[in-house]
Amino acid sequence: MKWILCTSFLFITFFNFSYAQTSKPNFIIIFTDDQGYGDLGIFGHPTIKTPNLDQMAMEGQKWTNFYVAANVCTPSRSAIMTGRLPVRTGMYSNSRRVLFPDSDGGLPSSENTIATLLKTSGYATKAIGKWHLGHLPPYLPTSHGFDSYFGIPYSNDMDRVNDVDAKEAFASPQPQYFNVPLMRDTEIVERPADQTTITKRYTEEAVKYIQENKDQPFFIYLAHSLPHVPLFASNAFLGKSDRGLYGDVIEEIDWSVGEIVNTLKKEGLDNNTYIVFTSDNGPWLVYNEQGGSSGGLFGGKGTSYEGGVRVPTVIWGPGNVKPGVVSKIGSTLDLLPTFCSLSNTKVPNDRVYDGFDLSPVLAGEDKSPRNEMFYYHGDRLFAVRKGDYKLYFYQNNPLGYPEKIEKLDTLQLFHLSHDPSERFNIASENSQIIEEIQALVNGHQSNMTFGTTQLEKRIEN
Amino acid sequence: MKWILCTSFLFITFFNFSYAQTSKPNFIIIFTDDQGYGDLGIFGHPTIKTPNLDQMAMEGQKWTNFYVAANVCTPSRSAIMTGRLPVRTGMYSNSRRVLFPDSDGGLPSSENTIATLLKTSGYATKAIGKWHLGHLPPYLPTSHGFDSYFGIPYSNDMDRVNDVDAKEAFASPQPQYFNVPLMRDTEIVERPADQTTITKRYTEEAVKYIQENKDQPFFIYLAHSLPHVPLFASNAFLGKSDRGLYGDVIEEIDWSVGEIVNTLKKEGLDNNTYIVFTSDNGPWLVYNEQGGSSGGLFGGKGTSYEGGVRVPTVIWGPGNVKPGVVSKIGSTLDLLPTFCSLSNTKVPNDRVYDGFDLSPVLAGEDKSPRNEMFYYHGDRLFAVRKGDYKLYFYQNNPLGYPEKIEKLDTLQLFHLSHDPSERFNIASENSQIIEEIQALVNGHQSNMTFGTTQLEKRIEN
Repeated sequence: MKWILCTSFLFITFFNFSYAQTSKPNFIIIFTDDQGYGDLGIFGHPTIKTPNLDQMAMEGQKWTNFYVAANVCTPSRSAIMTGRLPVRTGMYSNSRRVLFPDSDGGLPSSENTIATLLKTSGYATKAIGKWHLGHLPPYLPTSHGFDSYFGIPYSNDMDRVNDVDAKEAFASPQPQYFNVPLMRDTEIVERPADQTTITKRYTEEAVKYIQENKDQPFFIYLAHSLPHVPLFASNAFLGKSDRGLYGDVIEEIDWSVGEIVNTLKKEGLDNNTYIVFTSDNGPWLVYNEQGGSSGGLFGGKGTSYEGGVRVPTVIWGPGNVKPGVVSKIGSTLDLLPTFCSLSNTKVPNDRVYDGFDLSPVLAGEDKSPRNEMFYYHGDRLFAVRKGDYKLYFYQNNPLGYPEKIEKLDTLQLFHLSHDPSERFNIASENSQIIEEIQALVNGHQSNMTFGTTQLEKRIEN
Repeated sequence: MKWILCTSFLFITFFNFSYAQTSKPNFIIIFTDDQGYGDLGIFGHPTIKTPNLDQMAMEGQKWTNFYVAANVCTPSRSAIMTGRLPVRTGMYSNSRRVLFPDSDGGLPSSENTIATLLKTSGYATKAIGKWHLGHLPPYLPTSHGFDSYFGIPYSNDMDRVNDVDAKEAFASPQPQYFNVPLMRDTEIVERPADQTTITKRYTEEAVKYIQENKDQPFFIYLAHSLPHVPLFASNAFLGKSDRGLYGDVIEEIDWSVGEIVNTLKKEGLDNNTYIVFTSDNGPWLVYNEQGGSSGGLFGGKGTSYEGGVRVPTVIWGPGNVKPGVVSKIGSTLDLLPTFCSLSNTKVPNDRVYDGFDLSPVLAGEDKSPRNEMFYYHGDRLFAVRKGDYKLYFYQNNPLGYPEKIEKLDTLQLFHLSHDPSERFNIASENSQIIEEIQALVNGHQSNMTFGTTQLEKRIEN
């Protein structure tokens, strides 16, 4: 028996290896920061021009009901990396909702990331851009399955210098106003990072990585630092967009996407690569013109309204992704199981995952395994979506800030497919649906074990 | 001298004639009713699927700043037909904003329509669908340059029978609740019109007309009766859209557009035909789920906010229309001069026109001759757009109804390219721009002669 197991193991290892050399697909996640649902041409923005992403959406799938697992940065990023809700992994808090430069915590080493798992299938792995899952050595990308890393490890507005007025710093941003580090692997290589060229340099890093790793399967996690405020664009894009500086930034990101696609084509990798383009949460509405737009959705970053958590998503993979508009529910939580499925990578069953394998939907199946979304805000379950219906338990300020949480006394139910702007409360006519959602919530909560929060730990002085 | 003029005239006539027989382009306007800016896939709707229009937008031009000249039906339709503001042609009123079944007025016979002018260039002309510029003989399409007509001459919610509750009539519409006539030329051929098949029958009429008129240049004005409430779809579309009944209606219209494009291709006319798809005004928001969505724009039908008058517009013409997203300003007012330019049709200079020739923009020029929009509401100038900036003089209820007009004491100025949702009033920082707009308004008003209103005349009993 021992012998049989051993042979099987060898065989699988060998098979995996040879498969990897020939046809395991490459994966690229392009993850923007605070870009709203309405901030792409193909998602309806009137003046931001995104020809590359528009074209990719027509060649691939435009997902119109795709969600992040949290309405702010750190928990959302933990979910895309681990396929698990932030309340399970400890990447949540009610008082400090994201990590800060004085934070002493990060994504626990016990968690598996997409990179950790794909490495077991022989993938080369690269993280570029914003990490925000811990900037101290135990938490950096290179401690979480990535072979190498290049980027600003947290938000680009952190480490703001004291002698500049906040309004001025964001209205006319200069790199020296924000003393954020740029890291290569575990070393700081530039501080303050020159953010005017950051999108360009992230892009060059990604292009070079593709060129140098074309003979093995690779996974690139390219998490742009922008369009999070402060906004920066390189000279080639500055002042070019009809939308102003915010549009310049998005148009440079669209250029970046085009560079990556062109590189894949040039290297003959386009038919064996999946690109997922999405955003980490809704637009930061309190920054007015410096913030983005959720289009026809209600609310923005920091809220569990649709505008806070539904993100503009394009999944592209010529020959592998069946073109079309997908209005089924999907989530960043699903990327880990989907990539593992597509690459024949085993997901260890020693913990609860919150993601679903979307690979049948990518291949063209007209139903999604995901029928539900849980909208957490810190440790509170603000709302739940089941199929077309969303039921609220809590609400807050639609602008996200200042924070003002209210537990709802009266039920609020919306039909998101008929009423994506959440205008018409239909709770009174739908008691049966409300009961079904309550039952779903009870089942979910009875199986939930909250992880210890990692976001409240501070470096001791 | 007389001889020279005469020869030139003969030459031009001969040239025009021979040109008409070989290559004068066909024109098709597809004009929907109360469809909002956000109600197409390519304009950002999450659950309405419009693959035909999405594809046309990618093959042709998606216009993201395209305006109607009025925020309700009759004046808007007068403007697309005549290229003139409703206040000039008399198709305006403050008390009765559209024509009703008891109206005794209509578009004056002294006005030229696109059809009247194209007829002078040898075009076959056909009107299908909603007219709403007068249903009595002197005002019907056949009195305004169209060879023939098939359609419901006014809004599909008019002639509502008395014994049905209004809410019920719109929530679960039946054709017999609305005793509207269906006309062929000047005769009523069905009453009440069976609206469940109306989109289908309009489409069949258009397809047949293309097939029968392929040997001469033609102009088809296909003005759908829907998605104005009450909503109807044929069996093939009923219950099919994720968006509910409103989505079924739009998806049937998208199918209709596809049928027309396929017919053009089959007949070899696609490379010599321009299609303009647009809507007559914003969504009727007070009808909740039965009404549409203006996406990320503010306000709806009956308002001069962007959601009331900016409409989802696709201009398609393979080989003639340079593909791209056009965020320059355009208007339905411009179609008359544009079509006349493209067909070498003379526009008599005996009156003021408010349209511009957009043909250079269609051919790919990166600037529009139009830099301004005047937002009239009845005889009041509610707002003016000059370039990126919009200045308000009046405002009303963003839902359009109930009507409550307020003359503004304080200035409201918005940068529409940076802030398409009209969230940030920047009047206080932009006195120079306000002065420029005021000067523009003064010039406009000093040259304005108001026509006598045609909308207040009622049939005497």
